[in-house]
Amino acid sequence: MTQFQTTLPKECKAYLLRRGDGERYVFGRQVATIIADAVSSGGVFELATIAGGKGEQFPVHLHENTYESILVLEGRVELMLDGDYYLLTAGDYAHIPPGTKHAYRLMGHRNAFASYTVPGGVSNMYRTIGDAYSFVEPPAEAHPNFDDGHLERAARTADVRFTGEQVEWGTAIAADHANNPGTAAPYVIENGEGERLLTGDQLHRLVASQKNTNGDYIFILSDGPKGDPIVEHYHEHHTETFFCLQGQMTMWANGEEIVLFPGDFLHVPPGTVHAYRLDTHYTKVAGLLASGLFEPFFRTLGEPYEHYTFPAVPGPLRMDRVMANMANLDLNVVAKSPLDRK
Amino acid sequence: MTQFQTTLPKECKAYLLRRGDGERYVFGRQVATIIADAVSSGGVFELATIAGGKGEQFPVHLHENTYESILVLEGRVELMLDGDYYLLTAGDYAHIPPGTKHAYRLMGHRNAFASYTVPGGVSNMYRTIGDAYSFVEPPAEAHPNFDDGHLERAARTADVRFTGEQVEWGTAIAADHANNPGTAAPYVIENGEGERLLTGDQLHRLVASQKNTNGDYIFILSDGPKGDPIVEHYHEHHTETFFCLQGQMTMWANGEEIVLFPGDFLHVPPGTVHAYRLDTHYTKVAGLLASGLFEPFFRTLGEPYEHYTFPAVPGPLRMDRVMANMANLDLNVVAKSPLDRK
Repeated sequence: MTQFQTTLPKECKAYLLRRGDGERYVFGRQVATIIADAVSSGGVFELATIAGGKGEQFPVHLHENTYESILVLEGRVELMLDGDYYLLTAGDYAHIPPGTKHAYRLMGHRNAFASYTVPGGVSNMYRTIGDAYSFVEPPAEAHPNFDDGHLERAARTADVRFTGEQVEWGTAIAADHANNPGTAAPYVIENGEGERLLTGDQLHRLVASQKNTNGDYIFILSDGPKGDPIVEHYHEHHTETFFCLQGQMTMWANGEEIVLFPGDFLHVPPGTVHAYRLDTHYTKVAGLLASGLFEPFFRTLGEPYEHYTFPAVPGPLRMDRVMANMANLDLNVVAKSPLDRK
Repeated sequence: MTQFQTTLPKECKAYLLRRGDGERYVFGRQVATIIADAVSSGGVFELATIAGGKGEQFPVHLHENTYESILVLEGRVELMLDGDYYLLTAGDYAHIPPGTKHAYRLMGHRNAFASYTVPGGVSNMYRTIGDAYSFVEPPAEAHPNFDDGHLERAARTADVRFTGEQVEWGTAIAADHANNPGTAAPYVIENGEGERLLTGDQLHRLVASQKNTNGDYIFILSDGPKGDPIVEHYHEHHTETFFCLQGQMTMWANGEEIVLFPGDFLHVPPGTVHAYRLDTHYTKVAGLLASGLFEPFFRTLGEPYEHYTFPAVPGPLRMDRVMANMANLDLNVVAKSPLDRK
């Protein structure tokens, strides 16, 4: 994989970062790993994973001009969102529009979540609050914690404002959450919920649509069984991201073949010829797509689906509808299959 | 991997089953996958994974002569254990001695747990209750559910007795559980807790010791960073099992090299020359060892450890103590490293 790298690029390009790769910063017993920033994404989005141990927390804050999408990867995360408390576990999603007060506390001995921010301007917060960290996993003992001075400096270098409000932790329970307000308001969607669209053997959950982001991006959680590669294609206008959550998948990007494992991330900016194939009985991948203009593609190729598990017998794959609407979709097919080019 | 296979063996031998391989049975929207049975383990233990969707449950039952160890793999599982209710998430462990009434309800849209039973005699329950199933993931729609007739037949073919008692679900909350009673009584241990022993860079959690099993087995959850292979060795008396939970690890068994991914299982009966190496920044593996006679090895090689995350700087690896006590441990070293034999 000659063109891919293990450090955060200093320019916008297609790149792979494996789990643990990226810029790492430690504060307390938490580690923030910056996987994408405004430079590497061309100002489209940023992505950091946050990992830490029991009792670690982050004070009440808000982002004036930035959307945040949180996806819990592991453990138990108590989230205060606009005054409400949620206990989130793996696969749960939280949508945090600009101006929404939020804070978190880590409840398990091992916890991690992904924090996507759009369009960016938040990653410097970790660079300010934390110290550079060479190990990957959170430290056994706390590093000197962030204090008010750190927070003040962070607020000057990133789109973050700390409100100083106190939080009453310990009231949240793990619960069913399926309600998307359909506006740019804060909400939580539990693992498996969201608007479901079936494309053949793959089940996509649109957990944030353009209605939730003023069109800035969409967030999709997709899973499926072992299958065939999708068509090899590129987009002229929108950026795609692939964050593998479970199982294994093969991706092709600009002619290179890559196997993604859980925690691996592939950045696919406009112009990148790409395709993917799910390789295990159960593979799950998260995608933030920005802008949100590609949302109609999923409704064109797929069908609404009432169940929560992809079917043993694949549903229809409406490539006919995609072909008929090609002029309205940001889609350029290069080859029927990446395997055809070998 | 010529000697390894994808179906449950009809004899006791070293074998690999990848995630999804094994004998699969469906009931309702649940799938039981038998990964080890009394035949394949030589009467030492059995192992099945149970996966299913929201609201699926299993009625109150007990095993007269069998220990059960449950390890939650995914989702939210509400467990009734001897009249108490627990909401368990990934990595949580439940210990269920003979005679303990228990039942479960699946709370997330996607849930899975591993059920180890010692010495065996339970796997026929799934063969009786369920129908053979060719797909791997749970069905989107319910198969005809198990009824009283199925339960009666299961009770005649397996060590299971259904009590007919009703359960009041919905009262459990995800909570901190760290208390091992030190006897063969039921208990729950949350992810990361358990008696912790550090061997170099690896952290082992003894979640069930001989005191909890009358010496029949021990249950260990181990994690660590990328590292070197352990010494290649075999045991004369006890069976080991390796169930990969997170990350990737390389194993060597009888001269064959195997990479384990999450959900993959390797059976290592007495006489199997084996070794392992952890290959990712974070790798976690579950092991049931039966009988429990190997428990002193971990105390000999390792040191008690107060933290919950393995250290960036490895602790001591007391091979000197192991060498001095070799005659008392069921350990036969073949090579310093499996790589030395290449």
